[in-house]
Amino acid sequence: MKIAVCQYNPIIGDLKGNTEKILEGYARGVKDGVDLVVFPELFLCGYPPLDLVEKKEFRDAVSSAAKLIAGQTNHVGLLFGTITEDYEDKIGTGVYNSALLCYDGEIKFVQSKTLIPNYDVFDEVRYFESAKDVSVFEFRNEKLGISVCEDIWNDADYWKHRRYTVDPVQKLVDNGATVLINISASPYAYGKRKERFDMLSLLTRTDKIPLVYACTVGVQTELIFDGASMCFNKDGKLELLGKAFEEDYFIYDTQKKYSEIKNYESSFEEEVLSALILGVRDYAKKTGFKKALVGLSGGIDSAVVTYIAVKAFGAENVHVILMPSKYSSAGSVDDSLNLIKNLGISYNEISIQPVVDKALELLKPIFNGKPEDVTEENMQSRMRGMYLMAASNKLGYLLCTTGNKSEIATGYATLYGDMCGALAVIGDVYKTQIYKIAGYINRNKEIIPQEIIDKAPSAELRPNQTDQDSLPPYNLLDRILKMYLEEQKEFEEISKVIGDAAVVKKVLRLVDLNEFKRKQAAPVLRVSTKAFGYGRRFPIVQGWRK
Amino acid sequence: MKIAVCQYNPIIGDLKGNTEKILEGYARGVKDGVDLVVFPELFLCGYPPLDLVEKKEFRDAVSSAAKLIAGQTNHVGLLFGTITEDYEDKIGTGVYNSALLCYDGEIKFVQSKTLIPNYDVFDEVRYFESAKDVSVFEFRNEKLGISVCEDIWNDADYWKHRRYTVDPVQKLVDNGATVLINISASPYAYGKRKERFDMLSLLTRTDKIPLVYACTVGVQTELIFDGASMCFNKDGKLELLGKAFEEDYFIYDTQKKYSEIKNYESSFEEEVLSALILGVRDYAKKTGFKKALVGLSGGIDSAVVTYIAVKAFGAENVHVILMPSKYSSAGSVDDSLNLIKNLGISYNEISIQPVVDKALELLKPIFNGKPEDVTEENMQSRMRGMYLMAASNKLGYLLCTTGNKSEIATGYATLYGDMCGALAVIGDVYKTQIYKIAGYINRNKEIIPQEIIDKAPSAELRPNQTDQDSLPPYNLLDRILKMYLEEQKEFEEISKVIGDAAVVKKVLRLVDLNEFKRKQAAPVLRVSTKAFGYGRRFPIVQGWRK
Repeated sequence: MKIAVCQYNPIIGDLKGNTEKILEGYARGVKDGVDLVVFPELFLCGYPPLDLVEKKEFRDAVSSAAKLIAGQTNHVGLLFGTITEDYEDKIGTGVYNSALLCYDGEIKFVQSKTLIPNYDVFDEVRYFESAKDVSVFEFRNEKLGISVCEDIWNDADYWKHRRYTVDPVQKLVDNGATVLINISASPYAYGKRKERFDMLSLLTRTDKIPLVYACTVGVQTELIFDGASMCFNKDGKLELLGKAFEEDYFIYDTQKKYSEIKNYESSFEEEVLSALILGVRDYAKKTGFKKALVGLSGGIDSAVVTYIAVKAFGAENVHVILMPSKYSSAGSVDDSLNLIKNLGISYNEISIQPVVDKALELLKPIFNGKPEDVTEENMQSRMRGMYLMAASNKLGYLLCTTGNKSEIATGYATLYGDMCGALAVIGDVYKTQIYKIAGYINRNKEIIPQEIIDKAPSAELRPNQTDQDSLPPYNLLDRILKMYLEEQKEFEEISKVIGDAAVVKKVLRLVDLNEFKRKQAAPVLRVSTKAFGYGRRFPIVQGWRK
Repeated sequence: MKIAVCQYNPIIGDLKGNTEKILEGYARGVKDGVDLVVFPELFLCGYPPLDLVEKKEFRDAVSSAAKLIAGQTNHVGLLFGTITEDYEDKIGTGVYNSALLCYDGEIKFVQSKTLIPNYDVFDEVRYFESAKDVSVFEFRNEKLGISVCEDIWNDADYWKHRRYTVDPVQKLVDNGATVLINISASPYAYGKRKERFDMLSLLTRTDKIPLVYACTVGVQTELIFDGASMCFNKDGKLELLGKAFEEDYFIYDTQKKYSEIKNYESSFEEEVLSALILGVRDYAKKTGFKKALVGLSGGIDSAVVTYIAVKAFGAENVHVILMPSKYSSAGSVDDSLNLIKNLGISYNEISIQPVVDKALELLKPIFNGKPEDVTEENMQSRMRGMYLMAASNKLGYLLCTTGNKSEIATGYATLYGDMCGALAVIGDVYKTQIYKIAGYINRNKEIIPQEIIDKAPSAELRPNQTDQDSLPPYNLLDRILKMYLEEQKEFEEISKVIGDAAVVKKVLRLVDLNEFKRKQAAPVLRVSTKAFGYGRRFPIVQGWRK
């Protein structure tokens, strides 16, 4: 069987645009003489559609679009993901996350998703009922075993601890499927691709059935979908791999011999950088921004974000603003100017001091002689935020937020100050990882000036300040944070590993106390298994202390 | 059977404090000679504990605290809500939302929750498995039918469309329960109390069994729990009603005759005002703020918020800042001063103009001669936000955000400007409802100056501006918004009711386009069935248009 995989990039809710993409991919497959054209999970409405699913007019429009698409099919099969509704259901939402197989002008077969994920960034139980039935479908002398995303993530051979009691893919195998097809929308995190490979390779070589794993690509605000669709033969060998972080179209022939693909992953630096560039580019494309704006401090975070913006928008569409204060180090402006030169972007320099001084003068009656504290530091940061937002509003540029994961975790950032912006580009990347990425950016020639990489990290909000006045060294901090945030380890266990309970306690407390800031943070591009934002939900007000 | 209901206010995660409350209430019940002392759902860990449940050390600490509490019981029963864990579970989370019945020093019976809500503000499938079994428990010659919150919300007689196939309370009835007890944490919305009454009254008179419905009280960031626990006799008559919006302790004797309670609701204005006062007070109490700060504009929103702050903190603990600009109307300051006098609070007046002018001067090279637009308006608002945050930081006051639901819905607010603050006090109250509340505040004497109520609403960010330059009249706008946001109606249906498709389209589009601002908004105190925040989840970037 010849199967065309359309690893395309939908826009959530854009039924017109997504319909066009489906029809375009189908026409291409027909022209190429394939048997079946496959699109990813919920491609017609985009994934995740969230509460749009609760709107009846939306569901009706999706349903009409699906029928319209089916009506345009000929003898070649078209399989795509969409929401369906069972109006006979007397109990529950009556809505399903389904794969539709269409040909000869009709919807011929519907297989809904059985396993409804409801953890981390997934909220699907909120919307979808579990499939009433799982069955194979005969098409062109093959028995298609169709499943949707999570359905394939409960293999008893692979998982030590399973989430679900049923295994719909096993049922398809037991019912005699000869080709497995899984349509998927699986959010990216570094390392996830290896997990997909390991699991799917084991599954196909155990069950002796080839698999087409068709993934979505593109970015939906915080969630990055990396594509990299995979086709395995019945011996568990990876034979075709879709492009990573871009749209792709390719044909898999289950009868053909391919050479085995062994490299499906890149280095952390390369992969994450690609993910973030796509993140910024796709956010801008889907919201209509043509140009980007970054506040350049002279530090490594804003330098890396500016590089990402240049890759996403092109140098001619990136503008930066330098806003030194009296606490800025002599090198800050020079280093920034060197970066600007290396990247070939435009800039302005504007002082915050006269405005901060004026504000401080007027605030005197309120401050009432109280000593200087973090207030004055925050004011500098907020003044910069105000400039950047003014420029963004006036010029229509997308303001990229520059805070990293270590900062956001510990609250080492000013709400309404350096936290201003539409998208927290590196908000899921620890400070120590930023250095690695900077090194990767400079692998062939110096783009980010070495001075920026070498200097001690500082917010430069008071004389001779460095981050390490308030925080543990970043290599220690990031180890603690990674265990706490991503590895679900807790105080006792982390303390044992680190050997310093006091510093662990301090860091964990900072994380817990800063939930209120993160509530008001820009969306964070997710590149780890646990990012701040939608998939991490802690009470803002709570008293749990270990 | 004599049952003491402890309608207390827990702090999420504060196991020590919540344990003390349980032991204190239990001791009181023992002293009063009751048979059973009842605490609400998940009282030991607080509701909703969210991702704290995923922390093993947290679950272990909860489990230890539960055992410690059970160890202190005598022959009097103690029933409270907590999380439990089944370490034998091989599949799923293994965690349950349970009611524990303890006496004679031991946990004697555990009834876990069967119906796991996963809609609106509820995410419980993320954490909890459904109870494996439902059974009655014999205690002191009664057969207790114990259920947890949602378990009682699936009555086949009451609901036209049910969410769940099973009905655990019906099972308890079928198994011979003689007393029903439901421990609950049911978030407040105006009208919800009537729904509870109607459903529970029907259930008890149909099943001929008395019911103790023990509710939690207090505010957990956005979610307000109104208490108002209810005891029904076997004829469906409401015999006891806990206090609304405050802690309560009372004893219900299933053998005693009570006079029927018919008034369980107050007016919208009275109830919502009480809810918001508790909302601000509890947020401050649980986070340690002693004083509040409001930016007073001369408009009705900030006036009502200031009144709420005064009720929550006391006049001596509320400070306001007046920040007129050249566009402020002559009356704005005078009206504010009258309100300040009426409320007996302290204030400062500080000008934004010199700072905005200085900033505009410095921004000239960036603005590059482009005409005035919303940028300059936003700058004024952001300057005010910066002053308020500076005062909040320096003085340690809780900054109350003053935006109403109509504004937040349409994006008629400045991000990092008037949206600054820890808590959006009236963010779930429409503008037209604010007027009603102001009228209620003034019911006995004029507290909010009539001039503030009478003036045309204006952001005062450009000459002679009024809100109605940009928005439809509020009575029309709010009708559209209520249908769209709370009644799940959509474009076609709303247009039919309103009779003006163009204005409906404009409003709906404003709502959809401003998701990005709401992502970065302060938590909103929830008083309707659909508030902005945790319970409403739309994609920030999406292309759905009707």
